[in-house]
Amino acid sequence: MQIIEFYYDFGSPKSYFVDKLLPGIAEKHNAAVVWKPMLLGGVFKLTNNKSPMEMFKEVQGKLAYDKHETDRFVKRHNLAYQPNPHFPVMTIGVMRGAIYTEGTAFDVVYRNAVFKAIWEDQQKMDEPSVIRAVLNDVGLPADDILAATQTAEVKSGLIDATNDAVSRGIFGAPTLFMGEEMFFGKEALREIDDILIDKP
Amino acid sequence: MQIIEFYYDFGSPKSYFVDKLLPGIAEKHNAAVVWKPMLLGGVFKLTNNKSPMEMFKEVQGKLAYDKHETDRFVKRHNLAYQPNPHFPVMTIGVMRGAIYTEGTAFDVVYRNAVFKAIWEDQQKMDEPSVIRAVLNDVGLPADDILAATQTAEVKSGLIDATNDAVSRGIFGAPTLFMGEEMFFGKEALREIDDILIDKP
Repeated sequence: MQIIEFYYDFGSPKSYFVDKLLPGIAEKHNAAVVWKPMLLGGVFKLTNNKSPMEMFKEVQGKLAYDKHETDRFVKRHNLAYQPNPHFPVMTIGVMRGAIYTEGTAFDVVYRNAVFKAIWEDQQKMDEPSVIRAVLNDVGLPADDILAATQTAEVKSGLIDATNDAVSRGIFGAPTLFMGEEMFFGKEALREIDDILIDKP
Repeated sequence: MQIIEFYYDFGSPKSYFVDKLLPGIAEKHNAAVVWKPMLLGGVFKLTNNKSPMEMFKEVQGKLAYDKHETDRFVKRHNLAYQPNPHFPVMTIGVMRGAIYTEGTAFDVVYRNAVFKAIWEDQQKMDEPSVIRAVLNDVGLPADDILAATQTAEVKSGLIDATNDAVSRGIFGAPTLFMGEEMFFGKEALREIDDILIDKP
């Protein structure tokens, strides 16, 4: 089976887009997606990278265009995306939660809830009380998950995941891999769709 | 008829890609392309922008990925692209030539010759002797064109074209417009292909 690894951080709007659209593309080609949490702030520190908002802040017209192009993308794909008024969101708590939940029976529910809270419902997901309410709302064991994010095992799990991502050549999110072939950004969706082999 | 305006600078490899691929997309939808020369160095100065090579030079992995993604694109579209060893090429001379030739009977021949010299044949197209040889090779009146690039009219024509581009919101190349809707980068090819209405 063809495997697509998807490195993401909940704080990246383009990771949200890939989270929503990649499963349909994968299914069409009978491929499987493996979600790989990492801390984008950590990736930026390790690679000297910055968010587009920082990188292009002095460039006249660039961020306005990016916003417009994002709106066009959202409309074309009929997504429920809303910009988050608390951007940039500090995601270390929710990314630790992803390390804890990934591979469990409720990983999909956790991911969907957090992405929705940040990129559809404009929640401030760096506050434990907000995280707790969002997770409880979808029936997740919020107290267990929040407690887990304070354990040494989960903390070092996120650090290791982030270091591993950078060691594969990652400098930003979203990043996809098929084998050792890397694809960066939401444009990766088109490339992956072209490259995946149709298998019955 | 649907019109696509294509703002370009010969020194931009992604402008070369659009120059090669946009006509086929336009033809498929019975649309027309209008080439719009501008000086990318001037656009960068006016908008505080930089080439990706400058903007991302400190970011570990980013330029290596961009090169790899470019190679993938070139292979997918079966283009004759070669990186230019003299990059960044000073394009003021050849862009003035585009201002002079655009709208004449030999504009296509001129554009094709200059893009090919820079992005297929690795020529140093900021030297008049190289420009002369390349233009003569394809039967263009090289001396007339080089003389025209020294006239006040052509010089101010390129300045005006560059200012006009920035006043439309342009910050880089390639940039496409359909009406007032702007599309930046080689990714614009996919968007334009999606958006163009099929007309008989």
